[in-house]
Amino acid sequence: MAKIPHRLYLTEDQMPKQWYNLRADMKEQPDPMINPATMKPATEEDLYPVFCKKLAHQEMDAQTRYVDIPDEVLEMYKMYRPSPLIRAYNLEKALGTPAKIYYKFEGNNTSGSHKLNSAIAQAYYAKDQGLTSLTTETGAGQWGTALAEACSYFGIPLTVYMVKVSYQQKPFRKAIIETFDGKVIPSPSDTTEIGRKILAENPNTSGSLGCAISEAVEKAVTTEGCRYVLGSVLNQVLLHQSIIGLESKIAMEMLDEYPDIVIGCAGGGSNLGGLIAPFMQDKITGKADPRIIAVEPASCPSLTRGRYAYDYCDTGKVAPMARMYTLGSGFIPSANHAGGLRYHGMSPILSKLYHDGYMEAVAVEQTKVFEAATMFAKLETILPAPESSHAIRTAIDEALKCKETGEAKTILFGLTGTGYFDMAAYSAFLAGSMKDYIPTDEDLKRGFDGLPKIPGIQE
Amino acid sequence: MAKIPHRLYLTEDQMPKQWYNLRADMKEQPDPMINPATMKPATEEDLYPVFCKKLAHQEMDAQTRYVDIPDEVLEMYKMYRPSPLIRAYNLEKALGTPAKIYYKFEGNNTSGSHKLNSAIAQAYYAKDQGLTSLTTETGAGQWGTALAEACSYFGIPLTVYMVKVSYQQKPFRKAIIETFDGKVIPSPSDTTEIGRKILAENPNTSGSLGCAISEAVEKAVTTEGCRYVLGSVLNQVLLHQSIIGLESKIAMEMLDEYPDIVIGCAGGGSNLGGLIAPFMQDKITGKADPRIIAVEPASCPSLTRGRYAYDYCDTGKVAPMARMYTLGSGFIPSANHAGGLRYHGMSPILSKLYHDGYMEAVAVEQTKVFEAATMFAKLETILPAPESSHAIRTAIDEALKCKETGEAKTILFGLTGTGYFDMAAYSAFLAGSMKDYIPTDEDLKRGFDGLPKIPGIQE
Repeated sequence: MAKIPHRLYLTEDQMPKQWYNLRADMKEQPDPMINPATMKPATEEDLYPVFCKKLAHQEMDAQTRYVDIPDEVLEMYKMYRPSPLIRAYNLEKALGTPAKIYYKFEGNNTSGSHKLNSAIAQAYYAKDQGLTSLTTETGAGQWGTALAEACSYFGIPLTVYMVKVSYQQKPFRKAIIETFDGKVIPSPSDTTEIGRKILAENPNTSGSLGCAISEAVEKAVTTEGCRYVLGSVLNQVLLHQSIIGLESKIAMEMLDEYPDIVIGCAGGGSNLGGLIAPFMQDKITGKADPRIIAVEPASCPSLTRGRYAYDYCDTGKVAPMARMYTLGSGFIPSANHAGGLRYHGMSPILSKLYHDGYMEAVAVEQTKVFEAATMFAKLETILPAPESSHAIRTAIDEALKCKETGEAKTILFGLTGTGYFDMAAYSAFLAGSMKDYIPTDEDLKRGFDGLPKIPGIQE
Repeated sequence: MAKIPHRLYLTEDQMPKQWYNLRADMKEQPDPMINPATMKPATEEDLYPVFCKKLAHQEMDAQTRYVDIPDEVLEMYKMYRPSPLIRAYNLEKALGTPAKIYYKFEGNNTSGSHKLNSAIAQAYYAKDQGLTSLTTETGAGQWGTALAEACSYFGIPLTVYMVKVSYQQKPFRKAIIETFDGKVIPSPSDTTEIGRKILAENPNTSGSLGCAISEAVEKAVTTEGCRYVLGSVLNQVLLHQSIIGLESKIAMEMLDEYPDIVIGCAGGGSNLGGLIAPFMQDKITGKADPRIIAVEPASCPSLTRGRYAYDYCDTGKVAPMARMYTLGSGFIPSANHAGGLRYHGMSPILSKLYHDGYMEAVAVEQTKVFEAATMFAKLETILPAPESSHAIRTAIDEALKCKETGEAKTILFGLTGTGYFDMAAYSAFLAGSMKDYIPTDEDLKRGFDGLPKIPGIQE
């Protein structure tokens, strides 16, 4: 019998009462956002038309190390948090590794992922400011579901622009969002100027995440009392998601453990940034030196093959530009890529940390990811989301290296969500019809050619 | 801020190490099963061709009050148990009731329901006896998923006969079962005699649960080293599911609470029997007097409108007959009935307790159930399974009665699972196209006419 329990739940009392702002400890800050209208660094006020004030402040605030979590947010967190830290005993045994593998599981809520952590905060601040509606976009649907849950709880109407292909292929995701009173519109749509323009140019388009973002932003800035909210990439999102890492660290301390390696999947960076936050703090401040690994799909390799450059965050080019690892805002991963992690860029905070050598990154192919996912499901009896399974893949690979070297390293990875709405991809994998896709240098060049020119900054 | 936490998780150490066998405390026992081949009471040995030996023993054993949970089963339980006891603060507030509402949530595992509790036990005992394969049937798919998880864990091959209409309509359920290495066959099939017979008579049939049971049983008794396993109705299943009630009782004791009312949804009775076990023990032994309420669909009202009579447990009439509340083995609920809870009979243990006045029963219509489900989802941020939502409906109704009377009763209900695979039903409800269905007396008479004649017992 094991001394360390399979699952460790903190009590409500042990839950962090503050988020942690990693920027406060970074030796160098990410470069400032650029307002595309002025081509000058964006100010907090520049963000007010898009974000509510408190969130605009959080976006720009690099000084405040710890930010109090509002009571109302904590109350809703308590409906599904603290999330468990799980020891992967069966996976360890099956691999025959001396490594100890832990994972922080964020999938035990109806949205099915960690996205709820930021959705709650963003819906709360919007309500608190007296806003009367919100807009967002969703691709695979986890973010849309999470935000619909949060908006329903705080009583604020929500419109979700859902990438048309997802709207058509994932009617059940749409149904969940509607159960939580969210209004779902397939994107591109005729409700926005950018949508109408794209439809006029290409009436049969299946849509893209960038286009859905542009529609949601346009709707927000042109509607009284309405703002836009985004589930990843942003500094504010990483702040809210720090709850994942803070809880993980407390739980590991209770077990007298500290990770040698911290692994997270990386799309826009929300989960990775949240999970690693307190461990990165230790690394930056010299208290500890864990390896921190971002895992991205080989089909959308922003860190491993992207450029560290200023880029548009949305296809419509209305939101502020950010310096980040990017494939170019025109880059669209192959249609056969399953699940999320398909954003062209990466959180500016994580991009800076990677650029400065604090973090490693690996890209993995999706058949290898689904191999890991099915193995994990059978051993740990949790059906993982394709996104999360990128982290599983690398955790397994690192544990196998430990087997070779005989090192009993402690590995922590983020299991961000469940895969119940991704069974079409699982079926394709089981049937042997899943393909891998690695963009050619030519593919990437097309994306890079679309990077913006900013006088005096990026010519 | 609340003094009682939103969610209470027992620690691993606090987990029950024994199941509780309610029969040991019952004043009168359920009538014996009848072997349809001999028309005599079935013996433990009669069950050996169908069930493995330890399970046949558990099925017949009315004496042993507490049964040790094997270490191997406990180890797998620890991968998703203890399950949380949750205080429904938001639901209470929205209802404006003085009642305290608690629910035991069994949906946080990949099978999505409580079914895993018995699946693990049954797969373990089969493996322990050296059996080489198992068969079962599944309708909505929760049981098939749970058993596939358990069989995958213990390394025993599984064949699942899936009602053909579910096989066609729920490809994702099938995909999950296959992810856990289960073999899924649409029923009726040409792999059994009964299947071939039904197909010959009606090539276009969409199948039924009774037929799938018959195919699975036939396959088991005609295959070397193979046995059949069932996810509900049986005494052994109620024994395994007692873990739900035992954990609930420990958690409530920690909160210094005891339920005035215990509510569970009832199809075959697996969840209800498990949840109420220790509270029913108190009631039978005079230690306490909680009200215990079974909630069934108005479309399949075995307790509220069925007969207490001997009946076949399967359409193929090969399994032993049991005395239970039944609508007749030929009864099939309307096709527009969503989710599970569509079995024609009810656990013999629960039937006996209901017959002897220890338990109440109510039947609810499905539009009222989905009203409760969507309200609950929005307030408690868990998307409930349609089955579980029957219990939610009645918990809400009882809480509203408390509002009228001003009584601060303590209500405990079982939230057996999540509804991610039932979004088609949610969509129908949201679109206003969901219909109710209440069988006529004529409908019921047709079912009762098919009850078996047993010389000297039921003429």
